[in-house]
Amino acid sequence: MKLDRLAPDLERLQADLHELSGLVEPDLDGWSRPVFSESYRAAREWVARKMADAGLQVHVDPVGNIVGTREGRGVRAALATGSHTDTVRGGGRFDGIVGVLAGIEVARRLRETGTVLEHDLRVVDFLGEEPNDHGVSCIGSRAVVGAISADYLAMPDGKGVALGERLDSRDDIAAARWASDEVAGFVELHVEQGPVLERDGLQLGVVTAIAGIERAVATFHGRPDHAGTMPMGERHDALLTAAEAVLAVEQIGCSAPDAVATVGRVESLPGALNIVPSWARVWSELRSASTPWLDRVRGDLTARIADVARARGVDVELDWLNDQPPVPTTRSVQDLIASSASSIGYSWRAMPSGAGHDAAHIASLAPTGMIFIPSQGGRSHCPEEWTDVEAIGVGTHTLAATLLAMDTAPFARQEEQ
Amino acid sequence: MKLDRLAPDLERLQADLHELSGLVEPDLDGWSRPVFSESYRAAREWVARKMADAGLQVHVDPVGNIVGTREGRGVRAALATGSHTDTVRGGGRFDGIVGVLAGIEVARRLRETGTVLEHDLRVVDFLGEEPNDHGVSCIGSRAVVGAISADYLAMPDGKGVALGERLDSRDDIAAARWASDEVAGFVELHVEQGPVLERDGLQLGVVTAIAGIERAVATFHGRPDHAGTMPMGERHDALLTAAEAVLAVEQIGCSAPDAVATVGRVESLPGALNIVPSWARVWSELRSASTPWLDRVRGDLTARIADVARARGVDVELDWLNDQPPVPTTRSVQDLIASSASSIGYSWRAMPSGAGHDAAHIASLAPTGMIFIPSQGGRSHCPEEWTDVEAIGVGTHTLAATLLAMDTAPFARQEEQ
Repeated sequence: MKLDRLAPDLERLQADLHELSGLVEPDLDGWSRPVFSESYRAAREWVARKMADAGLQVHVDPVGNIVGTREGRGVRAALATGSHTDTVRGGGRFDGIVGVLAGIEVARRLRETGTVLEHDLRVVDFLGEEPNDHGVSCIGSRAVVGAISADYLAMPDGKGVALGERLDSRDDIAAARWASDEVAGFVELHVEQGPVLERDGLQLGVVTAIAGIERAVATFHGRPDHAGTMPMGERHDALLTAAEAVLAVEQIGCSAPDAVATVGRVESLPGALNIVPSWARVWSELRSASTPWLDRVRGDLTARIADVARARGVDVELDWLNDQPPVPTTRSVQDLIASSASSIGYSWRAMPSGAGHDAAHIASLAPTGMIFIPSQGGRSHCPEEWTDVEAIGVGTHTLAATLLAMDTAPFARQEEQ
Repeated sequence: MKLDRLAPDLERLQADLHELSGLVEPDLDGWSRPVFSESYRAAREWVARKMADAGLQVHVDPVGNIVGTREGRGVRAALATGSHTDTVRGGGRFDGIVGVLAGIEVARRLRETGTVLEHDLRVVDFLGEEPNDHGVSCIGSRAVVGAISADYLAMPDGKGVALGERLDSRDDIAAARWASDEVAGFVELHVEQGPVLERDGLQLGVVTAIAGIERAVATFHGRPDHAGTMPMGERHDALLTAAEAVLAVEQIGCSAPDAVATVGRVESLPGALNIVPSWARVWSELRSASTPWLDRVRGDLTARIADVARARGVDVELDWLNDQPPVPTTRSVQDLIASSASSIGYSWRAMPSGAGHDAAHIASLAPTGMIFIPSQGGRSHCPEEWTDVEAIGVGTHTLAATLLAMDTAPFARQEEQ
């Protein structure tokens, strides 16, 4: 049967993973390959070589995305897949990487089985998906949808060097943009980075949406009393107020099954053991694929934080940053991923992605889907990040089958996008 | 009546306060005169001159205490009073200072009224009572009771200079020590630094004890998960655990009327908004004049913190630092302060001191008492620190009457010391 013939070569995938995991920064913990580092440069040369070995025509676009193309029978628009090969500092060997290696393996299997698609196939290693010192994530995928402005390129790192100066190319970044009729659809394979698939004993996740993010910074102003002499009932303690706000954020995160809410940082001043803290700041984020939920909890959290501050006679300012709305994936592409997985016999569930991905940007341009494979223990962005090669094989096989289905089946962007 | 004749000259006290408050660091906020600063040096010359003008024989001992002596009729042991003239950074004009100025004013009033005591009177400006960059508070009062070891003298500041090198004298610090029969009793006048006297509408506090301090540092080890992908129920969030610990400390502080408990600082890592905090540290202190309470809450807090950590699957280490037991003042001296105040017609209450004082060290050597006067709004260690000169006059008058009473009345160290 045709789908079985497209199954990946696991030994080859394993060897690719092993080789790429050797190209990391020797002085950083884990498997670190930050964007613009020496190891990233070396890894990208390796990716371009692997693409060429797979018979792809390799092109590096003006922003630095590596694009390998396998020509089809002549439908003008391409089917695209891919992810990223940069990592966070102290990261692992799978996040992003499996999506690029799977795309190359699909191209190899198409060639080896003599399968020619109607559409061109485009395998992409997007530049710098992870957060970096310039504060700009998803550089490559933002650029292809025309979402890298001059403001982004001017963003300095800690040394004052602008993002634009870090890019190899001096060409106009706008030329990296994909025309809206250039790509017919996009599918990204990625590790889940959470524990759901492993816990449920399932092989695949069909991503329904990429969660939206609301970030709130609450700043509390109390009074710096002497910690030995001011009775408990007469204090205006900014840090106690912050502690209650931290627990309020958790309760909001627990108010819907697919939502999360996290306080990543608390600061306080003056920090002396014998002075009641007079100032505290709580950095929180709320994530959900549901726009109505995000809208509601924004109001809920504002009210809760005002309540805890009022009860302690502490002033509060609440700033909302970085409102990223949820991005639904395309219903027809979800259906093709699900039916392809079922046809081969793989188990799956529909699920949102709590993490951001290159696919969230491509979705503004073309019908888009995402395939998740399990992360052991749900661990990610750490050296312990792990996914068995068999699981990567399942994902790669499903990616190949999905692209094959998209090549012939009708699919389109859903109305709500 | 004799007691009325010892009433202080408020205009002179006001002028003294005004002059001394001009000797501060021009580049620091508030009324800052840190130990070893230029302004401290100038203020000490001013204090020595004021002592000499008051007819005291002035001596600077090997650690740097300024000691002014008024000779008595021949009882060998001296009655001592005093406090300190250094301030915290950003501090006020009254903490410590009123105790030194009151001592000088008492000497002046004794001279002006021709009053000669049986005992010598010793007025002391103790060196560096406030916490400093070497981490050694109460330098002068520790030295006179023989509690400055070579370890203390070796303590470096931020620039690596040892405390011993900051001292003017190159004499043996041990020579600053007072013999046990050299001082018959000690009384310190100080601002309350809390709101209790003002709230109760009372003029004076008779200090029953100086609170003991237990300091606990709790360190939590959780797991650094991706904040977008790890469900709320499967996290091991060190910062949420820390927030619960902060509120547990508060509850313990509220479990006895005269106790306080404060978290002065919370730290967490890694501090990124999209990572569940894996490490957090809570710096807390508990204060009470009651040794049984401190002993009990030490166990209570240990259990509470272990509970909150266990409930979240977070590991915890709890370190207890800097165990300072409560120091009761001498019962017979308390009684003489109270009866002297009542004789003049001043209102008072017995109360513990939540803050540390030079008197806590002197109490190990001689019968010791403390007189508190109100602090406006309970504010202290800040530029807003304020006590009216009339209130300082009430304290100074009571100090004079108490020293007169101690000069003739029997008093002794209580057994429990």
